[in-house]
Amino acid sequence: MKKVRVAEAFSAFSEHWSPRIIGELNGQHVKIAKAQGEFVWHHHADEDELFYVVKGRLTMRFRDREEVLDPGDMIIVPRGVEHQPYAEDEVWVMLFEPASTLNTGNVRNERTVEKLERL
Amino acid sequence: MKKVRVAEAFSAFSEHWSPRIIGELNGQHVKIAKAQGEFVWHHHADEDELFYVVKGRLTMRFRDREEVLDPGDMIIVPRGVEHQPYAEDEVWVMLFEPASTLNTGNVRNERTVEKLERL
Repeated sequence: MKKVRVAEAFSAFSEHWSPRIIGELNGQHVKIAKAQGEFVWHHHADEDELFYVVKGRLTMRFRDREEVLDPGDMIIVPRGVEHQPYAEDEVWVMLFEPASTLNTGNVRNERTVEKLERL
Repeated sequence: MKKVRVAEAFSAFSEHWSPRIIGELNGQHVKIAKAQGEFVWHHHADEDELFYVVKGRLTMRFRDREEVLDPGDMIIVPRGVEHQPYAEDEVWVMLFEPASTLNTGNVRNERTVEKLERL
């Protein structure tokens, strides 16, 4: 029951595409991640995912279109929907999703992070 | 699957203590609320609640202490924990909590909002 200064929490790490857990509630995790470049195309079979941009610009690509998110923008990607996060420059993102969510969804590759660090 | 500009969404209403729904995922609601003054002391028997400050300052009072949140700060209030949000000046808050959550928790009074508007 201590507050978390979200922007400061980002200073604890520098890796891209490696979410950290900063909170847990109702079986959901609050995570923060830094990202740059193109992530893998993937979907989550059973989990909806929320992305909220804290700093920078995030493009969420779908197979037929894309959404460009600036700080203070959020998007919910429903389960089953293929998506590819992309950021030309580094972006800081807060995520809200079930504790069971794997970052690469249905894909397992070098970007997959099985066990997330908790800040 | 459209982005939501959270700060802009606040311009759709002016009432205090009357959360609006701006997103839904995994049985959880994303809500935004404006607040000023003192809310009722309450707890939620079965729901953890996340508060994230978008603008202004929110004090979360507990029976034995308080946390002061500025923009970019978040706090998770676990189920069962009595709390009283307080804001000297108007504060804009984003909330994550189960869709079942009643704003006044175990209390029903003039502040209770049974049916939330969806933006």
